[in-house]
Amino acid sequence: MNNKENETGYKFSSDQTLEKIREIQAVFCRERDWDQFHPPRDVLFDMVGEVGELAEIFRFKGHVEVGLPEFSKEERVHVGQEMSDVLLSLVRLAERCHIDLPTAVLQKFELNREKYPVHRAYGKINKPSTENTAEKDGKTDTTGK
Amino acid sequence: MNNKENETGYKFSSDQTLEKIREIQAVFCRERDWDQFHPPRDVLFDMVGEVGELAEIFRFKGHVEVGLPEFSKEERVHVGQEMSDVLLSLVRLAERCHIDLPTAVLQKFELNREKYPVHRAYGKINKPSTENTAEKDGKTDTTGK
Amino acid sequence: MNNKENETGYKFSSDQTLEKIREIQAVFCRERDWDQFHPPRDVLFDMVGEVGELAEIFRFKGHVEVGLPEFSKEERVHVGQEMSDVLLSLVRLAERCHIDLPTAVLQKFELNREKYPVHRAYGKINKPSTENTAEKDGKTDTTGK
Amino acid sequence: MNNKENETGYKFSSDQTLEKIREIQAVFCRERDWDQFHPPRDVLFDMVGEVGELAEIFRFKGHVEVGLPEFSKEERVHVGQEMSDVLLSLVRLAERCHIDLPTAVLQKFELNREKYPVHRAYGKINKPSTENTAEKDGKTDTTGK
Repeated sequence: MNNKENETGYKFSSDQTLEKIREIQAVFCRERDWDQFHPPRDVLFDMVGEVGELAEIFRFKGHVEVGLPEFSKEERVHVGQEMSDVLLSLVRLAERCHIDLPTAVLQKFELNREKYPVHRAYGKINKPSTENTAEKDGKTDTTGK
Repeated sequence: MNNKENETGYKFSSDQTLEKIREIQAVFCRERDWDQFHPPRDVLFDMVGEVGELAEIFRFKGHVEVGLPEFSKEERVHVGQEMSDVLLSLVRLAERCHIDLPTAVLQKFELNREKYPVHRAYGKINKPSTENTAEKDGKTDTTGK
Repeated sequence: MNNKENETGYKFSSDQTLEKIREIQAVFCRERDWDQFHPPRDVLFDMVGEVGELAEIFRFKGHVEVGLPEFSKEERVHVGQEMSDVLLSLVRLAERCHIDLPTAVLQKFELNREKYPVHRAYGKINKPSTENTAEKDGKTDTTGK
Repeated sequence: MNNKENETGYKFSSDQTLEKIREIQAVFCRERDWDQFHPPRDVLFDMVGEVGELAEIFRFKGHVEVGLPEFSKEERVHVGQEMSDVLLSLVRLAERCHIDLPTAVLQKFELNREKYPVHRAYGKINKPSTENTAEKDGKTDTTGK
């Protein structure tokens, strides 16, 4: 089984919904009377901090392989915790902004399908629309955004 | 109905699961042969870029209220798109790291409940354990992380 | 003296050059044999982490005034330390990329002067070229970038 | 000449001071009446955005060598511009916070020298004080911060 097949096979093990995560988080904050500290920009600063903590785990590592085979068990747990913090900040931010995140994600996928048609985007790191021209801002994109 | 009650009432409208988002994203990337461009650190850089794009919407705004009442419809759509990009990067990153994000989030909630017991954390911006001492690193935290 | 005049009067107290900071940092790293850990992307991840630590100081603060009048002395020292960390990461990154940062900054100012001519940019938060049109990406900019 | 010697030889070509950059930037903003848009947190959001733009250049690149030998001339110019934007945001932020950045940097170096004594930090990626113990937060650091 090669690497691509292996990757194909990786799945999350739970059916956790974004709404359930939002609800648990909202109850958690309400029980502690923390809504007062969470206007949108304050939660966004928190998210930037959490992204920074995640980035710190991956610095001074050199190349890191799919599946983190060289990470210790403790490091893997730590990665999961920091990713969770980023997710919690993001879900909280969406709630505080009254942005319907799970719906927005589906709409974004539709945009991405239009922006990166398979026959033009296949195996290419640049946006299809700009691949033959000097890109003004030098951006490349292979995540469909 | 006061603001706190109002906030309590905000919910996401869909039952979208993280696993479903992961799967749609994985298929999207596989169809375009993009797995080759997505080792963990490359996806993490992408996420940092997406967080930056989200932050750019909120700069030069001054204070922003819960629910984004002063944002135009176009700005709200834009916020939803950039939040979606952050979420997609994060879910993709978790997949590429083989981190079971929905499970990790639940475990993080358990840690947060231990770290911020209601009777000590209620209405306080500092970590309960440090509220009466000079914090060496000056960190405060009210998102339970 | 009003606030604007006051702000005008704030100056850094030293004539520290970017090259001197680069040199001190380079010697510091070389003495510890750390060059091996500092390819460009690893230093960039470090910078993202440092920006996150700076952001964490400013979260849950609500509006923060010019001059940080409500920060304690300890908080101000902490802010200076985290800003220093960001600067050190950036200078180190420029060195590792062989980018002549002090020269690049001057060139960027020239670009900014062209992009934001005073008579069109005065007192406006949007880019002059887009102020009368719906901006596709919703970006605003008042720092001349 | 090996790589380490080569790196040692890289220098910035100008004697630009942080104070001069601050002054040029302050005049630029004052001429455009932009001080009103730049309370500290708004400038910090701007910096997060600029860091994101810098990160976007380095994503999907795989490993990047010292000196950016595989970058095109246009990409190198772009990197310099985005680094400049980060620097300008940081200098502006320091000014708006009334933080004496060039002085703070020197004080930080003193702290770093105490924290990472050569005989203990030489060639090691972990903080000397924690190298033999499981680090609670999993942090590693080789930039002396």
